[in-house]
Amino acid sequence: MKMLINRTDSLLEESLDGFAAAHSDILLLGTERKFVRRRALKPGKVALISGGGSGHEPLHAGYVGLGMLDAACPGQVFTSPTPDQMIEAAEAVDTGGGVLFIVKNYEGDVMNFTMAAEMAGREVASVVTDDDVAVENSTYTTGRRGVAGTLIVEKMIGAAAETGTPLAALKTLGDDVNRRTRSMGVALLPCTVPAAGRPNFALAEDEMEMGVGIHGEPGRRRVALASADAIADELLGAILKDLAPGQGSEVLLLVNGFGATPLIQLYLMVNSARRILDGAGITATRFLTGSYVTALDMAGASVTLSVLDDRAKALWDAPVHTAALRWGA
Amino acid sequence: MKMLINRTDSLLEESLDGFAAAHSDILLLGTERKFVRRRALKPGKVALISGGGSGHEPLHAGYVGLGMLDAACPGQVFTSPTPDQMIEAAEAVDTGGGVLFIVKNYEGDVMNFTMAAEMAGREVASVVTDDDVAVENSTYTTGRRGVAGTLIVEKMIGAAAETGTPLAALKTLGDDVNRRTRSMGVALLPCTVPAAGRPNFALAEDEMEMGVGIHGEPGRRRVALASADAIADELLGAILKDLAPGQGSEVLLLVNGFGATPLIQLYLMVNSARRILDGAGITATRFLTGSYVTALDMAGASVTLSVLDDRAKALWDAPVHTAALRWGA
Repeated sequence: MKMLINRTDSLLEESLDGFAAAHSDILLLGTERKFVRRRALKPGKVALISGGGSGHEPLHAGYVGLGMLDAACPGQVFTSPTPDQMIEAAEAVDTGGGVLFIVKNYEGDVMNFTMAAEMAGREVASVVTDDDVAVENSTYTTGRRGVAGTLIVEKMIGAAAETGTPLAALKTLGDDVNRRTRSMGVALLPCTVPAAGRPNFALAEDEMEMGVGIHGEPGRRRVALASADAIADELLGAILKDLAPGQGSEVLLLVNGFGATPLIQLYLMVNSARRILDGAGITATRFLTGSYVTALDMAGASVTLSVLDDRAKALWDAPVHTAALRWGA
Repeated sequence: MKMLINRTDSLLEESLDGFAAAHSDILLLGTERKFVRRRALKPGKVALISGGGSGHEPLHAGYVGLGMLDAACPGQVFTSPTPDQMIEAAEAVDTGGGVLFIVKNYEGDVMNFTMAAEMAGREVASVVTDDDVAVENSTYTTGRRGVAGTLIVEKMIGAAAETGTPLAALKTLGDDVNRRTRSMGVALLPCTVPAAGRPNFALAEDEMEMGVGIHGEPGRRRVALASADAIADELLGAILKDLAPGQGSEVLLLVNGFGATPLIQLYLMVNSARRILDGAGITATRFLTGSYVTALDMAGASVTLSVLDDRAKALWDAPVHTAALRWGA
């Protein structure tokens, strides 16, 4: 395990301190680093709070700021944050409009966010994301996993919250965006949880994991390494089958690196994905390409499609100013 | 070699096509993909053109757009672009204000940009960047290598060009920013040039290359893997010794990943670097953290400091809208 690290037990703290220092214009660390919060709150706005295990950076703390999240609660690596983190974050950022939790569908996260919602003593609703079409149930989930599509949900409801949309309508919007957003990924190399010190799964030199999860959990099948075009065929094929967008649909195409895959390869995947979309009569009119929802140092990528209508386009295009996504502000 | 790729001989073309499709709002591909150019030119503005071997994405094409470059010429992986690429790019984007080349100090790049300047038949000046303090001469250089600091030069002269600064003054500014900007990097894992198919250097499980170049070329020494704090000590120590900023100086801190190092580790390096700067009485007031000048799939990072004055801060903060850097626009 080769990493830029001092001690495994202080990796998260030190990384959060560096992150908070680098982005002190837009965010603050909560007491005992229980949460990252937006520095300037907007009174009366619904407070959006997400969180989950660390190791997926920039998710979620990288999406705290204008037009996206008000707070993010980082758990230890690949470990759910505890309910007290979400409760204290809600206390810090709820300015009277109520709180919306955005939760990736993993059993630990759902349980802890549910407990926090019950104990928070304020109005709380939740959107649970489950955009991964690879498998129905997985190592840590009942139902589908929430993966890279989560950032699209966070962006769109973040934009709506900024303009004063109330809690119930944001919950409806979030569920709707989640339903119109589908993802699937492939791993070429495994990731190493620092505290474990060894790769969390094994892949032979000529193998890849098709449908891998963002913790390295198993996907659909272990197969021989294939070309980018063949990989795109399988990922897009599964997504399009599930999503069934109509001919002439517009989509947002997110090609997301898992942490160790360089941009030159991700843009090549954009090209492969576009050929398939063109063939299906679907047009990508919004693009996001980079390592946005990662799995530590895993090599590989996921593809996400989100079906766009005029409202979704306006919400995606709306100003955002966070550490990891920024435009129009 | 595990990559998201179809054929090694079409990697660059396919990646450029994906890149151009994803960013068609701000840029265009030139004929035969000889250059990437800004879609909307500003008549009379000095045209800024950079380029170099591919494999360093998002450098340079990711910095084409408002407030930065007008064109970028991508060579094959780790190979200089040819003079005809820069000549045709200049033809396409020079609107009468003359052309400034920004060239990283490698022999092939310097030779080909110099030939292009002589053959372009228009007014051309050049800024050669050489911010890497690791070694004086290297595998491909006479003098120091131009590395991650190049993007800071591109950003600052890009901002100045946008406000109508003439060619000679931009050349002076670029040389000045280059002099005030110093970098050094470390590799934990080598990179693989796709056409070669094997890592371009070897590192044992417990070794790292201190002072590595962005093509995996040797640095100062091969040493035992050390903690992030010890690495930061050596990188910042070398940079501060060379740069000799006064007590109380303000700097821009760029912690740059080489391609396969995840963000959680890069922010930890920000934290380690800040402790050293604090101890030296220097304050980082601007930060950039991410994989901005890469070496394919190399693991590791570089640290860059750029000494700031009021003008440099204003140039850094000015609006930019490119694929890889965007704010205020």
